Amino acid sequence: MNDLFLRACKRQRVSRTPVWMMRQAGRYLPEYRAIRAKNDFLTMVRTPEIAAEVTIQPVDLVGVDAAILFSDILVIPDAMGMNLVMEEAKGPRFPMPLRTRDDIEKLVVPDPSKQLKYVMQAIETTQRGLGKRVPLIGFSGAPWTLAAYMVEGGGTKDFRHIKRMMLDEPETLLALLKKLAVAVREYLEAQIAAGVDAVQIFDTWGGILAPDYYRKFSLDFIADIVATMRHEGVPVIVFSKGAHHALADLAAIGAEVIGVDWTVDLHDVRQLVGEKVALQGNFDPSFLYASPPRIKDEVRSILRKFGMGNGHIFNLGHGILPDVPVDHARALVQAVKEESAMYHA
Amino acid sequence: MNDLFLRACKRQRVSRTPVWMMRQAGRYLPEYRAIRAKNDFLTMVRTPEIAAEVTIQPVDLVGVDAAILFSDILVIPDAMGMNLVMEEAKGPRFPMPLRTRDDIEKLVVPDPSKQLKYVMQAIETTQRGLGKRVPLIGFSGAPWTLAAYMVEGGGTKDFRHIKRMMLDEPETLLALLKKLAVAVREYLEAQIAAGVDAVQIFDTWGGILAPDYYRKFSLDFIADIVATMRHEGVPVIVFSKGAHHALADLAAIGAEVIGVDWTVDLHDVRQLVGEKVALQGNFDPSFLYASPPRIKDEVRSILRKFGMGNGHIFNLGHGILPDVPVDHARALVQAVKEESAMYHA
Repeated sequence: MNDLFLRACKRQRVSRTPVWMMRQAGRYLPEYRAIRAKNDFLTMVRTPEIAAEVTIQPVDLVGVDAAILFSDILVIPDAMGMNLVMEEAKGPRFPMPLRTRDDIEKLVVPDPSKQLKYVMQAIETTQRGLGKRVPLIGFSGAPWTLAAYMVEGGGTKDFRHIKRMMLDEPETLLALLKKLAVAVREYLEAQIAAGVDAVQIFDTWGGILAPDYYRKFSLDFIADIVATMRHEGVPVIVFSKGAHHALADLAAIGAEVIGVDWTVDLHDVRQLVGEKVALQGNFDPSFLYASPPRIKDEVRSILRKFGMGNGHIFNLGHGILPDVPVDHARALVQAVKEESAMYHA
Repeated sequence: MNDLFLRACKRQRVSRTPVWMMRQAGRYLPEYRAIRAKNDFLTMVRTPEIAAEVTIQPVDLVGVDAAILFSDILVIPDAMGMNLVMEEAKGPRFPMPLRTRDDIEKLVVPDPSKQLKYVMQAIETTQRGLGKRVPLIGFSGAPWTLAAYMVEGGGTKDFRHIKRMMLDEPETLLALLKKLAVAVREYLEAQIAAGVDAVQIFDTWGGILAPDYYRKFSLDFIADIVATMRHEGVPVIVFSKGAHHALADLAAIGAEVIGVDWTVDLHDVRQLVGEKVALQGNFDPSFLYASPPRIKDEVRSILRKFGMGNGHIFNLGHGILPDVPVDHARALVQAVKEESAMYHA
């Protein structure tokens, strides 16, 4: 197996920097769009053979060093009984958002071997398909990010409902987050048992909180999951997008890897936390609209910022955008492969 | 005149912390909505009597310590010939976005006394209406933020066109930013000549750039404006939303006040830069959906973070949201007035 990714997670010596891209199993690939044209998004998520096929596509087509399971962070609230609806234009939606203590008390922590069995089957099917070529990453949303979707009922710019709940009824929100932390931990443990080689916790909305609130309503629950989860030898990546103020704290919770977005300087972050964790990032996803030579320059610049040594996993600072030309994605992967060896000499 | 705001800008002694809210002349006020119901947004901006009336509303209705001229940052590109369109649902739009060097070379730096004369008239009318009760703040968009709207043609999540231009044709973008920096400087000087008591530069999109790009494509131009603008005795406030990585640099460009959003800890920022500049911020605007007692708690918490001494202007970390209850806005202003005196004892 190409174990560059797993070795980099553990800050072990590698011959070059490994690279993968968040949302790499996605719409920018014509081969993905061909499958998507015949199946709706949730059918793809729930059908192990389809999920496995699109998970493996970027390994074959783009040459990434790790696969990440094709799925969605909102499968947990869906498994808790919240009827996830995916609307092409509007994004994910829950028709009955959580607003009261009673709504939250009704939620049941799902049994991953039952309500999320399709995910475990997708992992097994994917691993057979991958045939140990590259590691497979499993994932979950962080409790705060899941709660934001569940309380708002979908995407939002202002997060008014969850922020109102946070201030006016903190105990209600904490009860939800506590339940979600158990669900996330058990879900990730089940993914590990089903065969993933690493797991990532996505905290897409961590960065919308002021620092004190982030610690209390997001970080504490992620830390609790990482501390209590059985994951011997399976690296844990935590990515709290926008939580620039908490990188030192994040590095201390026991995760092997911290993801960083492009609004931080990788050199500075490595100075701050690089001896404790590996770092994953941090190419601006919109830069993939630029021409391949400039993409290569930017890859060089990020590699230079991290500098000599191990513990860097090259990635974007957020998911790849759906209409990026595939050649540009390939140019990024190729540039990392060509330009990074000198930093591991 | 209530000069708390101007004294705080200069870090002079005040009896309590002054407070105003970005976008305080806006839709959350029923009195604003009554005028808006009869006039479209751009008519309000371009009619001095209406602009003056809504500028003064929050002084009377909410009790803020400064007025900010009712206008829009996009009046500059509009004055440069780009036909600004305001669509209720979609926000501002330019039907012919800038995409080539040629597009940019055609733009002419406006003469504020001609194409933006209505702004100067609105300032004069407002000052007569205010009768020196509180200071009046003028403003402009920062070159980077204006360029983002002009190149994208409106709001966007991914800023693909301007980021592509930044990488593939940096000289084209720099030519645009240079022209805009002259336009912004002359526009702010004209506002000062027309009678504003302070000016704010809004860099709404500064935070979407990686640190190195922010310095080269946003900060350098703001710094140039502040360094070359004639503004004796008139404080300059710079607010680059999301530019958490550049606060020390921002504090060194010669502006009297730096605005900060709610994702930074005001105590930490004051430690970093508080001897060089005053700080404006940083209440999470969505917290205004919470109940007045919790709003008061949050005001207390922010005042405590800044701590004893002068040089704090209380504000939100971004504009007030259009459907916040007026009573909640009043509760915030009242809480600052009641709770801040002890920090200036």
